[in-house]
Amino acid sequence: MVRAQGPGRMITVHGFSPSGNCHKVKLLLEQLGREYAWVETDSARGATRTPEYLARNPNGKVPMLELDDGRVLVESNAILCWLADGTKFLPSDPWQKAQALSWMFFEQYSHEPYVAVARFICGWTPADSPRRADLPKLRERGHAALAVMEKHLASNPWFSGDAYGIADIALYAYTCVAPHGGIALDAYPALRGWLARVEATPGFVPLPAPDAQAQALIDQST
Amino acid sequence: MVRAQGPGRMITVHGFSPSGNCHKVKLLLEQLGREYAWVETDSARGATRTPEYLARNPNGKVPMLELDDGRVLVESNAILCWLADGTKFLPSDPWQKAQALSWMFFEQYSHEPYVAVARFICGWTPADSPRRADLPKLRERGHAALAVMEKHLASNPWFSGDAYGIADIALYAYTCVAPHGGIALDAYPALRGWLARVEATPGFVPLPAPDAQAQALIDQST
Repeated sequence: MVRAQGPGRMITVHGFSPSGNCHKVKLLLEQLGREYAWVETDSARGATRTPEYLARNPNGKVPMLELDDGRVLVESNAILCWLADGTKFLPSDPWQKAQALSWMFFEQYSHEPYVAVARFICGWTPADSPRRADLPKLRERGHAALAVMEKHLASNPWFSGDAYGIADIALYAYTCVAPHGGIALDAYPALRGWLARVEATPGFVPLPAPDAQAQALIDQST
Repeated sequence: MVRAQGPGRMITVHGFSPSGNCHKVKLLLEQLGREYAWVETDSARGATRTPEYLARNPNGKVPMLELDDGRVLVESNAILCWLADGTKFLPSDPWQKAQALSWMFFEQYSHEPYVAVARFICGWTPADSPRRADLPKLRERGHAALAVMEKHLASNPWFSGDAYGIADIALYAYTCVAPHGGIALDAYPALRGWLARVEATPGFVPLPAPDAQAQALIDQST
């Protein structure tokens, strides 16, 4: 938690620390210097499927942002948009803003369902899970998404317009840990350069390392 | 095509008419009274996988919006955001705007991959396609998404804040044709009321009916 410098309501984030979708929100809040509370919510063990949680977020997912008056906002990339509105993390030019949003929809449709899901299956499902049969297809599609990113990065430094911003945060979250899902980054030099640029931005905080159980499962799977 | 009343660049939409993602863009352009050209692009028959198309949209999907200076914008919901910026179709209040975006990310992550994909498999893949084995799971998850919508609509008339807007357009596109994928709407009275409200908005244009071949496949599948 960081002391707030500016105005705004007190924010609570309900999130699962190993989740890239949740880490997106933490990374932006840290880089904005916003005060917030973090409520650890273990979605891998059912914490988003309790009646209390579902009453506030019927879709049963993390992250969920809560204001001090009880209003909630869900969907990681919508939370990023709200937090970044009016800041340097989202371009004000309508076309550039739309391009950043385009990459954020790409992330949720063409990237996360493969790159993040392959990682989740490797590290957070049992070694004999039938879901492991999906891994070859998920890895193939994950590589397709990384190839689209590599093409963009061959002639652009960022995904959020002229500067680092929330489209970079959205795409960084699971790209940096793609190897946990057996998706190697060796073939993507421009992408690896971009990951390093993201990690050098002021206030950057890394995604926590998997715990010992998840790391052991990842080591067996990749 | 409608004659433009206001300023703005000439717009070309590369789209596949039966696609809900493409129809979103057409519906908003019609309701905005914007002039545009439509280039029919049959993604079911490989038109988005040509070298020329991939050079402009490396992710190989429709819709793609093109300006008269050659710049392009992809991802249906990002296109909606750009077109709606500064209009009544997107709330100006930051929190309400974020809630509309939240529903649009929900649509692309938790709704379209099930409701739209079940419809596509039923109508646009061969009767013996191995993908048909996915239908039970897709239908189950499609119903889960519709249940989340039904819960919201029990106490809210729209998904875009106080008035009809682009989150409604985004969610309408495939919800209205969910039965093509074998996902019946009988259990969702609030949702059916909302579909009727969307269809009564000024300038509404319906999604085209499937062609005879697709309709025959749908009839066999549902």
